[in-house]
Amino acid sequence: MSARTVKLAVIPGDGIGPEVVAEGLKVLSTVAPAHGLALDTTEYELGAKRWHATGETLPDAVEEELRGQEAILLGAVGDPTVPSGVLERGLLLRLRFSFAHYVNLRPVRLYPGVRTPLAGVAPEDIDMLVVREGTEGPYAGAGGVLRKGTPGEIATQDSVNTRFGVERVVRYAFAKAAERPRKKLTLVHKDNVLTFAGELWQRVVREVGAEYPQVTTDYLHVDAATMFFVTQPERFDVVVTDNLFGDIITDLGAAVAGGIGLASSGNVNPEAEFPSMFEPVHGSAPDIAGQGKADPTATILSVALLLEHLGYAKAAAQVETAVAEDLRARADSGAVRSTSQIGDDIARRVAE
Amino acid sequence: MSARTVKLAVIPGDGIGPEVVAEGLKVLSTVAPAHGLALDTTEYELGAKRWHATGETLPDAVEEELRGQEAILLGAVGDPTVPSGVLERGLLLRLRFSFAHYVNLRPVRLYPGVRTPLAGVAPEDIDMLVVREGTEGPYAGAGGVLRKGTPGEIATQDSVNTRFGVERVVRYAFAKAAERPRKKLTLVHKDNVLTFAGELWQRVVREVGAEYPQVTTDYLHVDAATMFFVTQPERFDVVVTDNLFGDIITDLGAAVAGGIGLASSGNVNPEAEFPSMFEPVHGSAPDIAGQGKADPTATILSVALLLEHLGYAKAAAQVETAVAEDLRARADSGAVRSTSQIGDDIARRVAE
Ligand SMILES: CC(C)[C@H](C(=O)O)[C@@H](O)C(=O)O
Ligand SMILES: CC(C)[C@H](C(=O)O)[C@@H](O)C(=O)O
Repeated sequence: MSARTVKLAVIPGDGIGPEVVAEGLKVLSTVAPAHGLALDTTEYELGAKRWHATGETLPDAVEEELRGQEAILLGAVGDPTVPSGVLERGLLLRLRFSFAHYVNLRPVRLYPGVRTPLAGVAPEDIDMLVVREGTEGPYAGAGGVLRKGTPGEIATQDSVNTRFGVERVVRYAFAKAAERPRKKLTLVHKDNVLTFAGELWQRVVREVGAEYPQVTTDYLHVDAATMFFVTQPERFDVVVTDNLFGDIITDLGAAVAGGIGLASSGNVNPEAEFPSMFEPVHGSAPDIAGQGKADPTATILSVALLLEHLGYAKAAAQVETAVAEDLRARADSGAVRSTSQIGDDIARRVAE
Repeated sequence: MSARTVKLAVIPGDGIGPEVVAEGLKVLSTVAPAHGLALDTTEYELGAKRWHATGETLPDAVEEELRGQEAILLGAVGDPTVPSGVLERGLLLRLRFSFAHYVNLRPVRLYPGVRTPLAGVAPEDIDMLVVREGTEGPYAGAGGVLRKGTPGEIATQDSVNTRFGVERVVRYAFAKAAERPRKKLTLVHKDNVLTFAGELWQRVVREVGAEYPQVTTDYLHVDAATMFFVTQPERFDVVVTDNLFGDIITDLGAAVAGGIGLASSGNVNPEAEFPSMFEPVHGSAPDIAGQGKADPTATILSVALLLEHLGYAKAAAQVETAVAEDLRARADSGAVRSTSQIGDDIARRVAE
């Protein structure tokens, strides 16, 4: 097999970001060679430290460089010393928007051996794929403030939903649903209140759904969906939803599937016109940074999503299997391991 | 004690609405006389049936009549035969907005004997009061559609947040928190993404909070809040949040506290310039309508909120105690009772 070299940008970021990214790269570099994959990694220092030092979140020149990469692995950005929103809007969302990451892919799966806060739920009850829109909706940043600081102040926040943006993510979700054994797609929205956006989402799901007669479609209001996440998680297969609802239900999904330490995500541009970006759902957790306490599993599972996106499905499956085995072993042993020990153990399983 | 007569509007509505409202009124009329409360009830037929017959959701003249009442008891409105949004926007939200129900009060409490889907959680772990804003935010109905049905279609949905609207609900929430033993208030928002609205909410909580040094304030992003609802519900005492986030987290709250059949709510205008409206959180459940299968408990607990709002705190406590006893008895007996049997049993306990 002749090796293909993939240009991978690495953004370790803040807090536990560098620690978990190191383990992700460890596993990636273990699995890659056997699949003919060589990595040309470039590290970018972005996040709180850079912002404090230079006031920059994402300089244009860095964005241009990133654009020339094939994929991005990101740890976590954010720190309590940076005002809320600065790094989120200026770095993370800017990357998602600039690189048209219109599919924010978030598997929600309960691995055997993992403890869920739900009573009487088995691994086979929780196995869904949330396809969250990633480039518009209430995340557009539209809105503003009038008469700030006065009794007449008004702040608006506008959700922007386009046919173009909704259709592309809905098409992706149907294609995914058609590949899965259960072939079910649930739209989550709030169309009885957000009538303008809701009607567009419903209509697009109906129209695209007509091309997928083998896929069963369902609809739930977001409030009802959160109930069913905890009372009937087996109800869900593929879920397609807007940017904000997707943010909310995937954190809830992470919680029911054993916690944010295991939740992976991909910010995907399916056409590969731009580099896709893979990151754990968790944040930078500054309280435990630098102590080797962070669980790198979410990052390692994000590496599996990265491999699959790059076309290395077998390598991805190998990583996922290694993680599943490690999670089962954890349940048995109960031993506390450091971040790098978990990375070592998973890498070892991958190598076997 | 000289009797006071309260003018109460009753909107039974659709589906199971009339059944559960009948039980709410049964309990109300049992408890009222001993507390010197007489009721002058007027029933209004609003909902799906009226809309089908006349095309009306809430005629102006009916709204005017309702304005002259002191309180409203509502069952549920909605039916699959009515397009999504018509009754929600045209009736329910119109009442909330017209009558300045800026406090949407939703207790989330796990009663002893009630099964929660969460493992290892005890009643004392779930006892919160969600104060949801009820008159603005993404529920404002602002937004629109351009180029409908074409590839260039765009649908917007605007969240409207005013200093006036945010401050009044935040003040109410602090006052409630100050009355409770734990004196803790958690703001739930998404200020790292919805920066315009989020900053206003944060600033108002900070400013009003300065007047309540005895109340501890906390902040959580809405996505994190849904996680903590299932992993650490004991973290919450009073929660204040915007209209949409409140909608979502109170359904989740209902789920963890034993289900939507027990979740009560008040749409409150604290100054009593307009009639406040009390309703179960659940919907019209047309699939079980007319079969005596609906649980009237949420409506009966909403009657307790109504009594408290009218100044009959002792009567409210009596109803709540009767419900708590009934819920405990259910856990022991496991017998299946009809809607009216549950109402009878709770009314009997109230009368004792
Ligand atoms: C950090 C924040 C901007 C982000 C989001 O809201 O999308 C995070 O919560 C996530 O889910 O990736
Ligand atoms: C029916 C709907 C408009 C309503 C809401 O979204 O407020 C309901 O979900 C609720 O929580 O009372």
